[in-house]
Amino acid sequence: MFRKALEQVVTYEAGKPIELVMREYGIKQEDVIKLGSNENPYGSSPKVIQSLQESAHKAYLYPDDSMYELKNALASRFNVRSEEIIIGAGSDQILEFCMQALEHKNARVIMAKTTFAMYEVYARLAGVEICKTPSDGHNLDEFLSLYNANRGEKDYKRVSAVFLCVPNNPLGECLDTQDVEEFIKKLDRDTLVIIDGAYQEYAAFKDKKKAFNPADLIKKFENVIYLGTFSKVYGLGGMRVGYGIASKGIIAMLYKVRPPFNVSTLSLQAALVSLEDSAFIEQCIQSNASEMLRYEAMARDNALAFIPSYANFITLSSPRIESTHLAQWLLARGLIVRNLASYGLNALRITIGTPSQNTRVFELIQTYLGLSN
Amino acid sequence: MFRKALEQVVTYEAGKPIELVMREYGIKQEDVIKLGSNENPYGSSPKVIQSLQESAHKAYLYPDDSMYELKNALASRFNVRSEEIIIGAGSDQILEFCMQALEHKNARVIMAKTTFAMYEVYARLAGVEICKTPSDGHNLDEFLSLYNANRGEKDYKRVSAVFLCVPNNPLGECLDTQDVEEFIKKLDRDTLVIIDGAYQEYAAFKDKKKAFNPADLIKKFENVIYLGTFSKVYGLGGMRVGYGIASKGIIAMLYKVRPPFNVSTLSLQAALVSLEDSAFIEQCIQSNASEMLRYEAMARDNALAFIPSYANFITLSSPRIESTHLAQWLLARGLIVRNLASYGLNALRITIGTPSQNTRVFELIQTYLGLSN
Repeated sequence: MFRKALEQVVTYEAGKPIELVMREYGIKQEDVIKLGSNENPYGSSPKVIQSLQESAHKAYLYPDDSMYELKNALASRFNVRSEEIIIGAGSDQILEFCMQALEHKNARVIMAKTTFAMYEVYARLAGVEICKTPSDGHNLDEFLSLYNANRGEKDYKRVSAVFLCVPNNPLGECLDTQDVEEFIKKLDRDTLVIIDGAYQEYAAFKDKKKAFNPADLIKKFENVIYLGTFSKVYGLGGMRVGYGIASKGIIAMLYKVRPPFNVSTLSLQAALVSLEDSAFIEQCIQSNASEMLRYEAMARDNALAFIPSYANFITLSSPRIESTHLAQWLLARGLIVRNLASYGLNALRITIGTPSQNTRVFELIQTYLGLSN
Repeated sequence: MFRKALEQVVTYEAGKPIELVMREYGIKQEDVIKLGSNENPYGSSPKVIQSLQESAHKAYLYPDDSMYELKNALASRFNVRSEEIIIGAGSDQILEFCMQALEHKNARVIMAKTTFAMYEVYARLAGVEICKTPSDGHNLDEFLSLYNANRGEKDYKRVSAVFLCVPNNPLGECLDTQDVEEFIKKLDRDTLVIIDGAYQEYAAFKDKKKAFNPADLIKKFENVIYLGTFSKVYGLGGMRVGYGIASKGIIAMLYKVRPPFNVSTLSLQAALVSLEDSAFIEQCIQSNASEMLRYEAMARDNALAFIPSYANFITLSSPRIESTHLAQWLLARGLIVRNLASYGLNALRITIGTPSQNTRVFELIQTYLGLSN
């Protein structure tokens, strides 16, 4: 009855919810700290919460399927036109649209070895061959050499899509804008370059060289789509809103695979209001930057390895630590972090929390390290 | 760059939102009556609104991707197991999962000539051939003869899915449970029968013979999936929550194409609370039944044809009326109804509103008929 290709599809392992920790470990809600899914530890903007409360009575009304207001707000924020924007249930859904809409016949897609897991999931569902770079993080030379491999030969397959995650989840490193642009110039025009900027707000603050400008990009390249999300610094992980910015032609094709009403009424409202509260966003980004320094100091003090991160999380590892054991130990104490064993790495990804949350993380990690000495 | 099949995909025309009528006609929000999308005219249950307000601060947290609580509540409501349930962003999304997961190679799908437009959209995206019955509504003899057409011959294509909409949107008629069961017995086990019960609560109240019991169905048939939604009588059209009930094996395969976090945190919460407020739901169903009688009387008084409806809408037509003109005329006066011209019918589908909304509808229609006499 079902497609054979599905047998190979592995279901994405989502971060653990607070309710699960409460159920399984009998820990009270207020004692659970969730730093496993890169949510904004400050929550949503108070203005968003108020607006959600005021709009709750609209839950019975189907969303405005034209997404008129949010598209206009994004268009003015990014200095692009409404027709150059598509809005999805998270930027995830835009990835799904891309994979569904592209012609993958005799084609393959290219991504970094260790990058956002959904690239592979959606590519697999589309039945396209997946090529990964040898290095974990993004190395554009490796991308290019994969891109050109077997060119002109009998077994050559064109590349339908290239995934670039800037900064990269779950590792944290980030490519420079200029290097990415040089890279794209070397690709064919029928390859879609997907630039995933889910954590761009943090990277742009830390280093201007890592700041991607969607309007610039789509002016220069007809084959680029830039993805952004409201799930991270905008504090709306639960509302499922993301967006894609690309040329009108690409957006029109993605619209063909978009189901109607793909974003809920309250989600559209929350995203709109969150865009307006730039003071809140700025505070969150600044706190992230200063707390990141505390994490780096803690890592150095405890001889833990870390990758300098341009996002709102840090990836820690050590040959002394078995990440699955540590993650489990922390979970039993109410701290949810992300074990990267499912990515094939002996490492933990921890979302940068509020100062008091982070202090608790440091205490727990130090206790654990003390125990294992 | 994109799939050729997409050229044939026509984007679903969503019902018009209130904001659009305000923008385009300069009508005040309180003067717009929306009876175009079969939402519950009484809105969401007050308990749901309160719960949404209390949960608004959780908007930053990714949803519990196991949907533990809502699944348990649905399992207990329908007397099935959690593993026999999948939850989607509207029952729409379950349709999409079915079309994505099924093997359509050398296959076709069967549906009524005039039925929910998304069946065709998702089937087209899956690239499968679509066969429609000659009659507008559901005629099971026609379904069966389409099913058996060319059986055993060279150009025979198996049927991967049959769509049954009970009651049928946008017409309102509803098959009897017993007839559907007899029909399914005649099909092969590798055909998925999709029983769409989006408006079942209304039908079950009006006539027990039209009441489909998902637990019974999946016990009797391994190849059936029953779909339900929170968008209609449960008053959550804007929240995008629906569900599918089927054998564990079918659900497991649909899970493979489900994107993570496909239902928002607040949507899960709203659906859970709406399930509990059965008094509200019953009131809404009863009002719908009595107001439906007023619509039928109005139709008779004005010599308008109508199809007896088992849902929360009524489809009106008359050779004296050009539905596109009437819909436009009503829109300019703040009344949103659904013109069925896009379904190839000269008819209007009107959601049964509150008593005062309906009185206004009757006045407007009578004024229009008076003008055109």
